[in-house]
Amino acid sequence: TKHTEDTKTDRELYVKTTLRELVIYLLFLTDLTILTFGMNSETYYYYTKVMSELFLDGQFADTKNTFRGMTTMQDFWRFAEGPLMDGLYWEKWYNGQNVSDSQLGYVFHENKLLGVPRLRQLKVRNDSCEVHDDFKNEIKTCYDAYAESIEDKFPFGKMNGTAWVYQTEDELDGWGHEGLISEYGGGGFVQNLLLTREKTEPIIADLKQNLWLDRGTRVVFVDFTVYNANINLFCVIRLVVEFPATGGAIPSWSFRTVKLIRYVSIGDYFVLACEGIFLLFIIYYIIEEALEIAKHKCQYFKSVWNILDIVVIVISVVCTVFNVYRTIAVGNMLESLLQKPDEFADFEFLSWAQVLFNQGIAFAVFFAWVKIFKYISFNKTMTQLSSTIANCAKDLAGFGVMFFIILFAFAQLGYLIFGTQVRDFRSFPDTILTLFRIILGDFDFHELEAAHRVLGPLYFLLYVFFVFFVLLNMFLAIINDTYSEVKADLENQENEFELQDYFKKGYDK
Amino acid sequence: TKHTEDTKTDRELYVKTTLRELVIYLLFLTDLTILTFGMNSETYYYYTKVMSELFLDGQFADTKNTFRGMTTMQDFWRFAEGPLMDGLYWEKWYNGQNVSDSQLGYVFHENKLLGVPRLRQLKVRNDSCEVHDDFKNEIKTCYDAYAESIEDKFPFGKMNGTAWVYQTEDELDGWGHEGLISEYGGGGFVQNLLLTREKTEPIIADLKQNLWLDRGTRVVFVDFTVYNANINLFCVIRLVVEFPATGGAIPSWSFRTVKLIRYVSIGDYFVLACEGIFLLFIIYYIIEEALEIAKHKCQYFKSVWNILDIVVIVISVVCTVFNVYRTIAVGNMLESLLQKPDEFADFEFLSWAQVLFNQGIAFAVFFAWVKIFKYISFNKTMTQLSSTIANCAKDLAGFGVMFFIILFAFAQLGYLIFGTQVRDFRSFPDTILTLFRIILGDFDFHELEAAHRVLGPLYFLLYVFFVFFVLLNMFLAIINDTYSEVKADLENQENEFELQDYFKKGYDK
Amino acid sequence: TKHTEDTKTDRELYVKTTLRELVIYLLFLTDLTILTFGMNSETYYYYTKVMSELFLDGQFADTKNTFRGMTTMQDFWRFAEGPLMDGLYWEKWYNGQNVSDSQLGYVFHENKLLGVPRLRQLKVRNDSCEVHDDFKNEIKTCYDAYAESIEDKFPFGKMNGTAWVYQTEDELDGWGHEGLISEYGGGGFVQNLLLTREKTEPIIADLKQNLWLDRGTRVVFVDFTVYNANINLFCVIRLVVEFPATGGAIPSWSFRTVKLIRYVSIGDYFVLACEGIFLLFIIYYIIEEALEIAKHKCQYFKSVWNILDIVVIVISVVCTVFNVYRTIAVGNMLESLLQKPDEFADFEFLSWAQVLFNQGIAFAVFFAWVKIFKYISFNKTMTQLSSTIANCAKDLAGFGVMFFIILFAFAQLGYLIFGTQVRDFRSFPDTILTLFRIILGDFDFHELEAAHRVLGPLYFLLYVFFVFFVLLNMFLAIINDTYSEVKADLENQENEFELQDYFKKGYDK
Amino acid sequence: TKHTEDTKTDRELYVKTTLRELVIYLLFLTDLTILTFGMNSETYYYYTKVMSELFLDGQFADTKNTFRGMTTMQDFWRFAEGPLMDGLYWEKWYNGQNVSDSQLGYVFHENKLLGVPRLRQLKVRNDSCEVHDDFKNEIKTCYDAYAESIEDKFPFGKMNGTAWVYQTEDELDGWGHEGLISEYGGGGFVQNLLLTREKTEPIIADLKQNLWLDRGTRVVFVDFTVYNANINLFCVIRLVVEFPATGGAIPSWSFRTVKLIRYVSIGDYFVLACEGIFLLFIIYYIIEEALEIAKHKCQYFKSVWNILDIVVIVISVVCTVFNVYRTIAVGNMLESLLQKPDEFADFEFLSWAQVLFNQGIAFAVFFAWVKIFKYISFNKTMTQLSSTIANCAKDLAGFGVMFFIILFAFAQLGYLIFGTQVRDFRSFPDTILTLFRIILGDFDFHELEAAHRVLGPLYFLLYVFFVFFVLLNMFLAIINDTYSEVKADLENQENEFELQDYFKKGYDK
Ligand SMILES: [Ca+2]
Repeated sequence: TKHTEDTKTDRELYVKTTLRELVIYLLFLTDLTILTFGMNSETYYYYTKVMSELFLDGQFADTKNTFRGMTTMQDFWRFAEGPLMDGLYWEKWYNGQNVSDSQLGYVFHENKLLGVPRLRQLKVRNDSCEVHDDFKNEIKTCYDAYAESIEDKFPFGKMNGTAWVYQTEDELDGWGHEGLISEYGGGGFVQNLLLTREKTEPIIADLKQNLWLDRGTRVVFVDFTVYNANINLFCVIRLVVEFPATGGAIPSWSFRTVKLIRYVSIGDYFVLACEGIFLLFIIYYIIEEALEIAKHKCQYFKSVWNILDIVVIVISVVCTVFNVYRTIAVGNMLESLLQKPDEFADFEFLSWAQVLFNQGIAFAVFFAWVKIFKYISFNKTMTQLSSTIANCAKDLAGFGVMFFIILFAFAQLGYLIFGTQVRDFRSFPDTILTLFRIILGDFDFHELEAAHRVLGPLYFLLYVFFVFFVLLNMFLAIINDTYSEVKADLENQENEFELQDYFKKGYDK
Repeated sequence: TKHTEDTKTDRELYVKTTLRELVIYLLFLTDLTILTFGMNSETYYYYTKVMSELFLDGQFADTKNTFRGMTTMQDFWRFAEGPLMDGLYWEKWYNGQNVSDSQLGYVFHENKLLGVPRLRQLKVRNDSCEVHDDFKNEIKTCYDAYAESIEDKFPFGKMNGTAWVYQTEDELDGWGHEGLISEYGGGGFVQNLLLTREKTEPIIADLKQNLWLDRGTRVVFVDFTVYNANINLFCVIRLVVEFPATGGAIPSWSFRTVKLIRYVSIGDYFVLACEGIFLLFIIYYIIEEALEIAKHKCQYFKSVWNILDIVVIVISVVCTVFNVYRTIAVGNMLESLLQKPDEFADFEFLSWAQVLFNQGIAFAVFFAWVKIFKYISFNKTMTQLSSTIANCAKDLAGFGVMFFIILFAFAQLGYLIFGTQVRDFRSFPDTILTLFRIILGDFDFHELEAAHRVLGPLYFLLYVFFVFFVLLNMFLAIINDTYSEVKADLENQENEFELQDYFKKGYDK
Repeated sequence: TKHTEDTKTDRELYVKTTLRELVIYLLFLTDLTILTFGMNSETYYYYTKVMSELFLDGQFADTKNTFRGMTTMQDFWRFAEGPLMDGLYWEKWYNGQNVSDSQLGYVFHENKLLGVPRLRQLKVRNDSCEVHDDFKNEIKTCYDAYAESIEDKFPFGKMNGTAWVYQTEDELDGWGHEGLISEYGGGGFVQNLLLTREKTEPIIADLKQNLWLDRGTRVVFVDFTVYNANINLFCVIRLVVEFPATGGAIPSWSFRTVKLIRYVSIGDYFVLACEGIFLLFIIYYIIEEALEIAKHKCQYFKSVWNILDIVVIVISVVCTVFNVYRTIAVGNMLESLLQKPDEFADFEFLSWAQVLFNQGIAFAVFFAWVKIFKYISFNKTMTQLSSTIANCAKDLAGFGVMFFIILFAFAQLGYLIFGTQVRDFRSFPDTILTLFRIILGDFDFHELEAAHRVLGPLYFLLYVFFVFFVLLNMFLAIINDTYSEVKADLENQENEFELQDYFKKGYDK
Repeated sequence: TKHTEDTKTDRELYVKTTLRELVIYLLFLTDLTILTFGMNSETYYYYTKVMSELFLDGQFADTKNTFRGMTTMQDFWRFAEGPLMDGLYWEKWYNGQNVSDSQLGYVFHENKLLGVPRLRQLKVRNDSCEVHDDFKNEIKTCYDAYAESIEDKFPFGKMNGTAWVYQTEDELDGWGHEGLISEYGGGGFVQNLLLTREKTEPIIADLKQNLWLDRGTRVVFVDFTVYNANINLFCVIRLVVEFPATGGAIPSWSFRTVKLIRYVSIGDYFVLACEGIFLLFIIYYIIEEALEIAKHKCQYFKSVWNILDIVVIVISVVCTVFNVYRTIAVGNMLESLLQKPDEFADFEFLSWAQVLFNQGIAFAVFFAWVKIFKYISFNKTMTQLSSTIANCAKDLAGFGVMFFIILFAFAQLGYLIFGTQVRDFRSFPDTILTLFRIILGDFDFHELEAAHRVLGPLYFLLYVFFVFFVLLNMFLAIINDTYSEVKADLENQENEFELQDYFKKGYDK
């Protein structure tokens, strides 16, 4: 939205134009903000919380452990027989009375289970890794960490039924999943559960009895989706248990609370109206930017503000298109689903896309807010602040290089020495984040000390001393010094024409 | 309390007047401070602690869960049958012996239960929300999130008795309540408990058996009040369980420890004396301010100090009036209550008003302390400090705008991306507070990382970099630079007449 | 230790004298440091840890609660019957075999129980407080919070035996105790336990059966002392359960690990040698200071360093005297105790005095270290630093006044609004500490938010903004600015004669 | 790698040489970085995590305590009978079916137990300490804290079998161990466990029945090693329970996840290639440095960069040599071990050496990164930063002395007053670390307050005030001021020839 007229000659006209632009921009921003607030509310959080506590914090009958604390393969079966059944099937009221038939299939008596839940596992082949010569006689089998190329696709166990016969990603119409340890494919051995607890328990028992999970198993997914008609929200739930090549079990989960059916209540229609207005704004800005590009050619792309404009527009257009697609896709899906209530309902892709849509909008709003700075630089004090940053940019860059070399040196040292023991140093990116968090004082010193009694504290002291004391203070000195200079410079300049002068003038008339 | 005489001509007179004013003011402040310390003590905290631990941390018989950790409707009944009964009825000594009749009805054997506890629930109507067309065949009932307009007021269950027949706010003489999820009305379905455990347990059992809580239930309140004669304190207790439209249960509570009968012990009469003196001061200041307003007219309201004076006076007057009203109201209430010990005693309003009264006094003291700055600006060093702040006000304002735009941009980004998953981002105001807390290093990074493995850390790094490093350092540079300037300016000025000179002069005589 | 000769005329002599003084001082400091390191070691901590975990973390048989989590009077009996018995009487090995008779009476099989443990309770009278007129008919009894003046000293229950008959502080040869809620007297109703579990359990059962603790009980003490011959340490243990007038129970404890018999092993004799040398130093310094006082009279007391000298000397002399007394007292006490092994051994006073002795020595060392600054100010850079602080003292004082007024205003506001709910605001001093801790980022925001959903966050934001951002930055600006000035001043001065010049000169010769 | 040619005369040649050097250096650094990333991965952390959770978090059958929370000798037997057996012997699948014979001896069914686990204890003699005269009649036995000189080496209990007869460090071919409380020798009373649970349980029961652990026992080690062929990692596990002379039990542990067989998979061979290249670089640098030393003689050692070069080279050579040795040693060991599967496999030394090797490489990388600063000082901005640090070095040193005197004074005060009670003050080094952590806001204030209600908070306030406010701000002032000076100086200098000029020149051609 750079001014398309040539305004250099007439200062007052320039201000007028900018003001008009600013007002339009603020209207746009307001509309966008209202729109996004209509997209989210505390209800989403409480829905996620209620559903995740139900499945993650339910205690196993014997060990009182929970899904969150799972450590062995046996724990998975404890979970499947206990909290999973309790969480999925609400067939009795709290006084022991059975619920009516029409009330069957509702989690918490409120959240309709869409289709049936599904268990899916992925396995790796027995011969997927090389055993060292010294052990070849002793160790005959070797199951590597998961990789798509070494997946075990052969039938096993009872040799028939989906649970024991591999289906490909295409057959399942599935999607890959990024777990804590690996990225997993979308195929696998699949077992759908049934609509009542009575019928499902034997299935679980049968899987357990026939060793459905074995040494080759690298991951199990439990997938299902619930829909709450009261608040018109879907919660797409995936519980993941990874079985790393080290032995043991590592649980993770995703609870995606999304609003796939967007226009139901009055509030929704208000948001729809905002979206309409938003569309008009976007069209207006597309035209404006197109005109500008036509006029300024390559010059256009040299301004950061213009790039920002384009980013916002592109995100907006993509999101709008998705919005239309989603509405259609959900409609189709629900229709087919409600006809076949005992099939698995795969909302994985739709919920993922919806989350991406939300993130897209979120970034659009963020950039839209940042763009206000373009208009604010009118004011003298703001100029002072931004030129301070601009003036010390070179010094800051030098400082930045110095800072990052030291940060990298420390990060690599920490990762290599403590990486095998301490969670916060388990990978290089985590280590860098941890080093940042130390600066803020958010850090578990005792764990570091436990990892190595001498090197832990030494490393900590050295790092704090260099980065916290020396580097950050240097950084401060740079900005401090530059600010004084910039202020002195600006005071010697003649005052430029400012926004408030414009208003004052109008007021004086 | 601006000086009413014209003192500009005679400097010494001016100092004398101000000094007299200061001395009076310090007396006033001292009186007020003593007064407020008489209003609170550690005992209040320990009373709250003891009562809240009794009801909130008592374990359920089977699941060992507590009120704090409640997650389902069934948990409410576990609570009602276990910790609630144990907490309310202390009918045996620790050795199993029954307490004497006169000792019945005392929580902890010390705290008299005033009247009987009361359960109250609010429901919403079945048809309170629109089900989307796709689901209309499947989902016949829909209970929206609570709103007063969709309350279900029809008798249900056993159809008779207060528990099953709706009473309005007026009939109950009740008050609304602001819960975690909604604001609730003061009516509802009400069940009073009885004076002994033996008689109360069947009531609870009956409610449970007949499904008193059903899908329409949105909130249950457990209300009661205890009075401790030893320390002359009331504790007005309200345990709230909200059943959101998402399913599940969200507990909250309020324990208001208040001193509704204020004048019993000797210490209380000392406070009464202070209150008398305080009243005299207030009358004195009212007269003075009235004279000043009469003299200076509109000019008067241009000084911040005068506004402060008026705020303090208004708060004081309101509190005094309430003090009188409270004394009368409590007297009446107790009288009628002690005659009918098996009715519910509603101290909700009185305790709420008393808390408001305490907050009012607290703010009055706060403003009274701040007003000291008016007199302190006499001194040169203080001038230096306050003119620094004054001089960089414009720069600070510019900085503030910049800071808040960035803060808002980050807050909206964080709220939209993490709001459905992370507690500290669940609403926009919470997000803003969280962003402030990150600056202080008080932050749960792991939760953010769990919400999104890439965007979480990225967001954190970006925010810390911009706000913590760039903006705060700029802020520092502004103050730093201004201070040097102001100090240089002041050193060039001739020294003004100062307070210490006055004293010195007196001393030299 | 100010130089007693007149050295102003001869600079070199002055340096020489100071050097000699410094060397002597360093020897003194070294001796003192060695001495104190001989007084403490990690063993002390581990002893405290092991003993406190035994009694505080032992779980009750039924509720799995611990001493730390105690909330009711019944919990005290659960503790007395469970963890207390288990902790005191180790009559079987882990394989179930009985220990030999000579091994009876050792906690952990290692720590000799000195004498027998003792239970002591204090009660208040029934009529110790005024009941308000409105309640006079209902509430006949009233037990006030503990105060020595309202203690109940009448026999009760079984009316005979020490447990049921009051003994005064003098009769018991006891000491007062400062608890969490009140300060308690040293008398009370006392029950000694016996040497074996078999005999002790009936005593506890009898006390419980006859309601030894009743509504008037305000505190129970469990006192005993163990001695570990392996490491020659005493652990004087006091477990306290306060029963406030609010009802409920508040546990606290003290584990004093002290070395009452100081000279046993070779290491001890080395410390003894150090103490001898220390004594010589003290005598030397006493003489020197006496000479100086004689010479300089009142002038002497105007130097901070001299005051420091006197403080160190006085502490040292007091500690030395106590050291002698302690050795004698312990000897006597042990002798009489070992003859009567079934009496209570009161090490309360001795351990308290020993802890005070340790604290005295600790402060002596602290001041001795601080005094090094006297000699260091020789050096130019150090002068620069200390004159910075000196020069900005006035500004800092002004800042300090401002800071503390604001801090007090916030503290009083916070105390009055949140004091009844939040632990960290429960008293005025705690509130001030909490406000300091917020600056460091060590703070539980969620508790504040829970206390009041609006005022909590608002208070937090306001405070952080004022104190953290405005005031601390001002503070920084003051020091920053003064440092530049001082440095400029010093560079204009001619260089003074410095310590290194002296050494250089010597080296050049 | 200082430039060997005389380049002072020709500036351009100098730049050229340095550039060439820099490029070679960056290649070296890249190689080294790749190498080290090949040495570690998240798998290591997950392996440690899975193994440590298995043994440390397994609950005891009756008390539900874990190894981490162990406090008594009895707890050791609870651990040995419960979690240790469960963790070591996986003889059934989760459905209760026995595993096949070839699958026996695998922890988690995946990790081969190498050899058998071993219990080892160390005892001290009965007469190892002096009992004070007063107690000589009462206390006949005295077991001092562990020291090698007072070890009890006499047979005891059943008097035969390795469990009851002492073996020396040489006989066991063992190594010392540094525990939390003492440093322990490598000999002791040793009991190997067997290959199946059925056979091992009677051994444990027999040891317990015959009081294998008695009052003289000071430490028990449980040692074993597992090998995971899937990921080719060894985990060398040592569980330690120390029984201090105070009574009680203090658990500690070490889980060393190491890659003793380094070249198996393709990734490993890539690392091997990197190691080859690394070797070439090292040879190149050895030659270069040798030439330089020959030329510059003693001058050479005056440059920090040269010292850094030598350190890196020496570490690299040592690591390379170890690498070869390790490969041979592991081969031999595994061979002999696999022939005798029922003997204990002592990987203690090898794993320790491997960890040292990793640390060596880690430091080499760290120093290599730091050395980049040598080349970066080319640039003007960097010069500005480094000369700031250089210029204020003297002031900083002065400040440092001041800081450390105050830190030491506080540390000694804190250690002496709180050392017996608070974990973070339990030893002098811990106290110093704690004082550093307070500055970052990472601190448990409530524990300090619990240790002493008055001195705790007072100490905290005093320390925070002095160190945090006064000293750190001084520090800032120093750097701030020096930076301004240095910048002014540099601006007055003529611009030196810079790296970018060189490139620019090349570009201009
Ligand atoms: Ca400055």
